[in-house]
Amino acid sequence: MTNPPAPAPASDNQSSSRTGVWLIGARGSVATTAVAGCAAVTAGLHPATGMVSETAPFASAALPPLPSLVFGGHDTAACPLGKRAEQLAEGGVLPHGLPVALHAELAAADREIRTGGPLPGDTRGDEELIAAFAADITDFTRRHDLARTVVVNVASTEPVPEPGSDRLPASSLYAAAAIEAGCAYVNFTPSTGIRTRALAEAAAARGLPHAGRDGKTGQTLLRSVLAPMFVQRALSVRAWSGTNLLGGGDGAVLADPAAAAAKNAGKERVLADTLGAAPEGEVHIDDVPALGDWKTAWDHIAFDGFLGTRMVLQTTWQGCDSALAAPLVIDLARFAARAHEAGLSGPLPELGFYFKAPDPGAPASLSDQYGELLAFAARLGESR
Amino acid sequence: MTNPPAPAPASDNQSSSRTGVWLIGARGSVATTAVAGCAAVTAGLHPATGMVSETAPFASAALPPLPSLVFGGHDTAACPLGKRAEQLAEGGVLPHGLPVALHAELAAADREIRTGGPLPGDTRGDEELIAAFAADITDFTRRHDLARTVVVNVASTEPVPEPGSDRLPASSLYAAAAIEAGCAYVNFTPSTGIRTRALAEAAAARGLPHAGRDGKTGQTLLRSVLAPMFVQRALSVRAWSGTNLLGGGDGAVLADPAAAAAKNAGKERVLADTLGAAPEGEVHIDDVPALGDWKTAWDHIAFDGFLGTRMVLQTTWQGCDSALAAPLVIDLARFAARAHEAGLSGPLPELGFYFKAPDPGAPASLSDQYGELLAFAARLGESR
Amino acid sequence: MTNPPAPAPASDNQSSSRTGVWLIGARGSVATTAVAGCAAVTAGLHPATGMVSETAPFASAALPPLPSLVFGGHDTAACPLGKRAEQLAEGGVLPHGLPVALHAELAAADREIRTGGPLPGDTRGDEELIAAFAADITDFTRRHDLARTVVVNVASTEPVPEPGSDRLPASSLYAAAAIEAGCAYVNFTPSTGIRTRALAEAAAARGLPHAGRDGKTGQTLLRSVLAPMFVQRALSVRAWSGTNLLGGGDGAVLADPAAAAAKNAGKERVLADTLGAAPEGEVHIDDVPALGDWKTAWDHIAFDGFLGTRMVLQTTWQGCDSALAAPLVIDLARFAARAHEAGLSGPLPELGFYFKAPDPGAPASLSDQYGELLAFAARLGESR
Amino acid sequence: MTNPPAPAPASDNQSSSRTGVWLIGARGSVATTAVAGCAAVTAGLHPATGMVSETAPFASAALPPLPSLVFGGHDTAACPLGKRAEQLAEGGVLPHGLPVALHAELAAADREIRTGGPLPGDTRGDEELIAAFAADITDFTRRHDLARTVVVNVASTEPVPEPGSDRLPASSLYAAAAIEAGCAYVNFTPSTGIRTRALAEAAAARGLPHAGRDGKTGQTLLRSVLAPMFVQRALSVRAWSGTNLLGGGDGAVLADPAAAAAKNAGKERVLADTLGAAPEGEVHIDDVPALGDWKTAWDHIAFDGFLGTRMVLQTTWQGCDSALAAPLVIDLARFAARAHEAGLSGPLPELGFYFKAPDPGAPASLSDQYGELLAFAARLGESR
Repeated sequence: MTNPPAPAPASDNQSSSRTGVWLIGARGSVATTAVAGCAAVTAGLHPATGMVSETAPFASAALPPLPSLVFGGHDTAACPLGKRAEQLAEGGVLPHGLPVALHAELAAADREIRTGGPLPGDTRGDEELIAAFAADITDFTRRHDLARTVVVNVASTEPVPEPGSDRLPASSLYAAAAIEAGCAYVNFTPSTGIRTRALAEAAAARGLPHAGRDGKTGQTLLRSVLAPMFVQRALSVRAWSGTNLLGGGDGAVLADPAAAAAKNAGKERVLADTLGAAPEGEVHIDDVPALGDWKTAWDHIAFDGFLGTRMVLQTTWQGCDSALAAPLVIDLARFAARAHEAGLSGPLPELGFYFKAPDPGAPASLSDQYGELLAFAARLGESR
Repeated sequence: MTNPPAPAPASDNQSSSRTGVWLIGARGSVATTAVAGCAAVTAGLHPATGMVSETAPFASAALPPLPSLVFGGHDTAACPLGKRAEQLAEGGVLPHGLPVALHAELAAADREIRTGGPLPGDTRGDEELIAAFAADITDFTRRHDLARTVVVNVASTEPVPEPGSDRLPASSLYAAAAIEAGCAYVNFTPSTGIRTRALAEAAAARGLPHAGRDGKTGQTLLRSVLAPMFVQRALSVRAWSGTNLLGGGDGAVLADPAAAAAKNAGKERVLADTLGAAPEGEVHIDDVPALGDWKTAWDHIAFDGFLGTRMVLQTTWQGCDSALAAPLVIDLARFAARAHEAGLSGPLPELGFYFKAPDPGAPASLSDQYGELLAFAARLGESR
Repeated sequence: MTNPPAPAPASDNQSSSRTGVWLIGARGSVATTAVAGCAAVTAGLHPATGMVSETAPFASAALPPLPSLVFGGHDTAACPLGKRAEQLAEGGVLPHGLPVALHAELAAADREIRTGGPLPGDTRGDEELIAAFAADITDFTRRHDLARTVVVNVASTEPVPEPGSDRLPASSLYAAAAIEAGCAYVNFTPSTGIRTRALAEAAAARGLPHAGRDGKTGQTLLRSVLAPMFVQRALSVRAWSGTNLLGGGDGAVLADPAAAAAKNAGKERVLADTLGAAPEGEVHIDDVPALGDWKTAWDHIAFDGFLGTRMVLQTTWQGCDSALAAPLVIDLARFAARAHEAGLSGPLPELGFYFKAPDPGAPASLSDQYGELLAFAARLGESR
Repeated sequence: MTNPPAPAPASDNQSSSRTGVWLIGARGSVATTAVAGCAAVTAGLHPATGMVSETAPFASAALPPLPSLVFGGHDTAACPLGKRAEQLAEGGVLPHGLPVALHAELAAADREIRTGGPLPGDTRGDEELIAAFAADITDFTRRHDLARTVVVNVASTEPVPEPGSDRLPASSLYAAAAIEAGCAYVNFTPSTGIRTRALAEAAAARGLPHAGRDGKTGQTLLRSVLAPMFVQRALSVRAWSGTNLLGGGDGAVLADPAAAAAKNAGKERVLADTLGAAPEGEVHIDDVPALGDWKTAWDHIAFDGFLGTRMVLQTTWQGCDSALAAPLVIDLARFAARAHEAGLSGPLPELGFYFKAPDPGAPASLSDQYGELLAFAARLGESR
């Protein structure tokens, strides 16, 4: 997939137009689906459903074309991408037959995955780890003669870091490595990543753009369109309760209360930002292995209408998180690469459309966020 | 805003600042709730929940204040407003005790209700009926020394008119009367109303503004925020199915397939306008008297994500239609009155926020419609 | 209410046919609804909807007639029953107007409520408290010349007792008092009550029947009919997840994890007993004050069909717990009184129909439990 | 039980213990799933999930073992079973890989499918068609040296026959052929089949057992456990509304109002039989091709509790009809074959567990029906 179709000799002109996408958590479900999906769409096997950057309004934003993307990344797991793809096909996330059809592309990306860390028993300090990760990224960019590389965090959610720790969480080690390697950075997870004062300052100093955090793919996506509706109609939300059932790795990770806390903070932020105050109600995340890669989210919204009449809206969302996240990850890599190319630096609230907890300055309603994204694309197109 | 601006004695000046709201279907659930609710909010008994025009962004639009509204209307039913309010309190639509507390206000509005038509056996022709209705409205405006009156249709949904009939449907007779009486006109129902070429031209010739049609209060409101979400996220909607269960008079009226057809046209238009083409799926409207004035709407949306993964969103909306509609009816009366005062004429697509089938030129997504409403309010405020 | 309609002088014969119902938690929602509802049905104001003992199959079981029931009880709250009834009418649990109509009956029951305990700072030991409670019950029985009194626990759920405590939980103090007063005992809550070896033996020694525990009124009721369906159809339940949203006092009490644990044990037992093993999935109980006395329970059941096809059933139950529980409390009081009269002693698994965690020997499916109840009624009728 | 009892060489004795299953609609989804599933379970590839006859309580009913079943049938479609199985695997009804693994078994069954009728333009009269169908069945039974053959109708639902027609509906032609061929008969569809006076009498005269009609697999299955719950708990069902969304061939067939009427009659019968009277509410069946072989059924039940409190239960069932029906079809063929062997004749209300509209005498609640099935199995076991 990542190889240009032409058999012509690699010239400076051609090679310099390619863009690296370095995935933290490169063997996870989201990363595997992103790599396989990008190849499938490039090969014309599937339409680009779910990929916003491929829709008409973004055609002139000068985003790097899908065939120009080259994938690599870090992971601590060893299972090859091809095998992960087979597992996802078993679970109904990828179409049957796709892993075989894309065998070469998956193997190519798999060869570019380096061991992440810190692994248990690892004696290296933060600086040593950052340097090693940065070297992996730089080596990747150099070997493929890439114009630039974007680092995207799609690893499992970390627990909320305990205050006072003198070690950086792993997600921040990778963010620091991205900065050191001169890369734009995107955090699709609720983990800390670049959201420390020191790292944000370092990115600004290096002139690097970054965006985050915590991709919104299901329940929070819905909340970001429903909450504004209640506000615009002057209806009074009394309680907003939610339960998420999910299997796969995610369910198990989020059964850890600390990780769930990180995730829920984003979900509740959307409501508080939109409604003015957080309504009554809780959010549960349950590990239900029987659901595999599929997720069910139930929301119950109790609201008051005219003269105090009590009404209820319930929603049930049954989706596949990897299939929802993967095209957005590709979108973000393309936007961040283009922003880097255009000389933008620092946080990108214009990408708030994609996140539960966007960078400061982003509006809270999906519709307003979409408007900002359109305007951002127009500016990127003009600056070419 | 809900308090009269000045405690001064009733002078000629003050009285000329009062606005008439003439309701077609003045003894129905929506009208009764609107009259009772306006009085309750004015009296400080309840907050203005559900009334968009009372929220902060509209404070400077120079809309007629709630206490300045005077209610009257046409109906073919004889049951007094006070008794209708009691029935609605029995059904949980109005708070217990409110009909007693607002006895005087309900009685005052009831005295301003005139017999509508045509009644069975009525031998009057269209022109005669229009003249009689217009005389009722003019008399109301004159007797109360109103600055102007807005005519709002909240009567039961008419069957889709058969082509080739030489008689106007009742809703259009009232619309014609509104024009003859020099009033702005709002159609909150799916009935024809002013949507004939002749009536639209007559309104334009008289310099009268009008808005319609078919208020969106529940299922279609939801659809107008959810459908744009799918489009913005490049998700492919395969099928959108819906079932509405409702009792009260509405259920029985809409059990008539011709009336249901009128109602469904609006619901489906929102999807077709937003999604580009109508997806698979039907909409059912069932008469379930046991539900009384409450409505339950279930929607099932089958959509495809990345690589063809099949996902589903379901929504269940349990609301009270009268309580949802009534504050919007008051909103619309205020906006139309202000538009009339400001010299606007013809259709008002800026009020598309309120309607399933807005006037030509209105956007389809609720968020865009809200943006237009804000801009409209700003213009109204400036033109003062 | 509790007075027989006949104006005849109180004779020995007549008075001896009256039955006491002594409610622990006598000022709670369930108790108030039970007292008011029994009076309303006796007075012919409402049909006996929800009261199984009043249906045709139980007409010849010789249960004490509704008008023969006399109510009293213990509570630590001071709010009079009449006022509690007004609050419940505000919340839509009782019909408007009912508290006024039943003012005399509510006041009569209220006069028979004694202060429970132990209150904070109470220095009395267990034996002292038991003796005081038993004296209250005996005095009630004697003063009203009742044939017998049944003690029914409808108090708030206690936390699961910590092992090794040398004090009895309050629910067991009342159960001990019931035994000391020679009364049949019913535990409608998940609290310990009579379920200690010593108390069960004491009841058997005194020849007293008892039944429990944890009335099933909503989600678990549903589970007790749905789980057998899956078993009978040889469908394989993979995961059964549930979320309960409830306001009122219950929501707050059950937000305490220890109390929730007591409640959930019953819910999960039904599944484990029926399905053979507990499936994946959790149960959440959320305190949502905005819902008042109403409860919403969502269940999500993932099951496998033929050849491993994955299917899902979801249920949403929106009910009023007090209204569901109250008629069952009256049922149970009648059955327990009749069992006492018939000389039965010890646990009554025949009443498993009513409980989440029935006495040993009861079947797990509602249908089988109903069959046992019918057979029990037949035996009670024959033994007259 | 799934293993043939003896590895002995094929002798006359052994062959006479084999049982034919002749499927009307042999190339439809249900039939294909039944043939493939029986082979898969026999081969040990899958557990017998969904097949009631394979559960422990039926082990001693002397039902014909799965490996002894031989499949054939009539269909008017030409698509080979192997190809139909591939299509079902594409749609997720059969596991990927199964059609290849069972290639031989599917081909063997496909060779035993004969052209059904009447086809458009067919000039044969009823008697001629019946004779031709019967000859096909007899030939199948003879060639395979089967002990007996059961005819099972799993064809698409016929429209409700118009009164006064002088032709038998196709389903009845096949039923007549079954009688002429001396076969037990099962009608898994709502079509007429053997439910004419003449055919029922002919079956009785020939000493043939038969069972029907209209298999209950989803929404009606649920109704048959939920409706008794409301009755047993003395709760008053006010309205029961339902919407079915289904694709596949079924959706299109049932979009025909006459066919839907046939189907709905069964659904409503369950409620009327259990609740005493049909509650308010309608049932819709929508053709939604996007859902493929999957079906979603939403039910909304409005009921009253104590003192008229209004409550609601909603259910959403997402299942695969073919996967639900196929194991029941195999169950029914085995029970009918065993009943035939045991000398039973006429309708079999004992199989009401499987049907929406069982033979007269069957109880209405699933639980009671299951009890009857257990008793029937015991009698069949004893009569061996």
